[in-house]
Amino acid sequence: MNNEFIESHIHDIPDFPKEGIIFKDISPLLASAKARSITTELLVRDFRGQTIDVVVGIESRGFLFGMLLADALNAKFVMLRKPGKLPGAIISQEYELEYGTDTLELQENAISPGDCVLIHDDVLATGGTAIAAAQIIQKAGGKVEGFNFVIELDFINGREKIKDYKIASVLHY
Amino acid sequence: MNNEFIESHIHDIPDFPKEGIIFKDISPLLASAKARSITTELLVRDFRGQTIDVVVGIESRGFLFGMLLADALNAKFVMLRKPGKLPGAIISQEYELEYGTDTLELQENAISPGDCVLIHDDVLATGGTAIAAAQIIQKAGGKVEGFNFVIELDFINGREKIKDYKIASVLHY
Repeated sequence: MNNEFIESHIHDIPDFPKEGIIFKDISPLLASAKARSITTELLVRDFRGQTIDVVVGIESRGFLFGMLLADALNAKFVMLRKPGKLPGAIISQEYELEYGTDTLELQENAISPGDCVLIHDDVLATGGTAIAAAQIIQKAGGKVEGFNFVIELDFINGREKIKDYKIASVLHY
Repeated sequence: MNNEFIESHIHDIPDFPKEGIIFKDISPLLASAKARSITTELLVRDFRGQTIDVVVGIESRGFLFGMLLADALNAKFVMLRKPGKLPGAIISQEYELEYGTDTLELQENAISPGDCVLIHDDVLATGGTAIAAAQIIQKAGGKVEGFNFVIELDFINGREKIKDYKIASVLHY
């Protein structure tokens, strides 16, 4: 019942960002205080029993629920950002896109060795960003406890790339 | 005392993003559950007495406390994004940068006519983005009730550009 309520706040936008793709828009979900609250609870539910020292949010939509999750779990919040955005000493991790590559960056001192880390993003699609996020956390000495996503696009099977980790998604398409 | 506690969680990073600039890094603030909570309270304090229907967060660091503010005020959260990121019908607003121009985008149906809107970003610098944000909200029929920022850089005097609005900043430099 909760999942149906959340699902009613995700809108399909055809042909975005390109023709033939149906974009799952979370804007109506962000606009509802009640839907935000239920989504946050569903996202943290599977991680309540275990130690989570850090919630990592992937730029930029991973920042949205990322901060709410960090509050709900009384954890640190850490940003994973696109290149050139984070100041100071940086660890970086390249990953493959459909055409070319992209890079994620993390501040060198953001994760302490042994920190138990939950990685959050709004959508799991190909899993390319997700596995890069796990790799950069591990480079920094963190222990990846799992991933959570508001939406998982099952037909793309990004789950395969991060199958060694716990994965909790609120909605599946 | 609260402000001193928050200030101890902002780190100066010299020569970022370019030589001669001292960047105010909010990462240590995001990493502390207690500092996040106090910051959120200081950000909403001046707006508690009035109606706020919508908190608008400016991409991407405005998404961070933006969601916490929306929860604290039981309001909608709406994203103002960089060009090409938002799906569906869009309202856009150009604004000037030091060299060239940039654009903010808002979904056409995100603001209802008459909505009372609080605009949030992490830093007030030149005020160029802030005034563009006010303009786009007004185009959409919203009423701008004010702005809040974690950090205001007084020496740049961005406040001058948005002097017709209420402005609440947690820290001044």
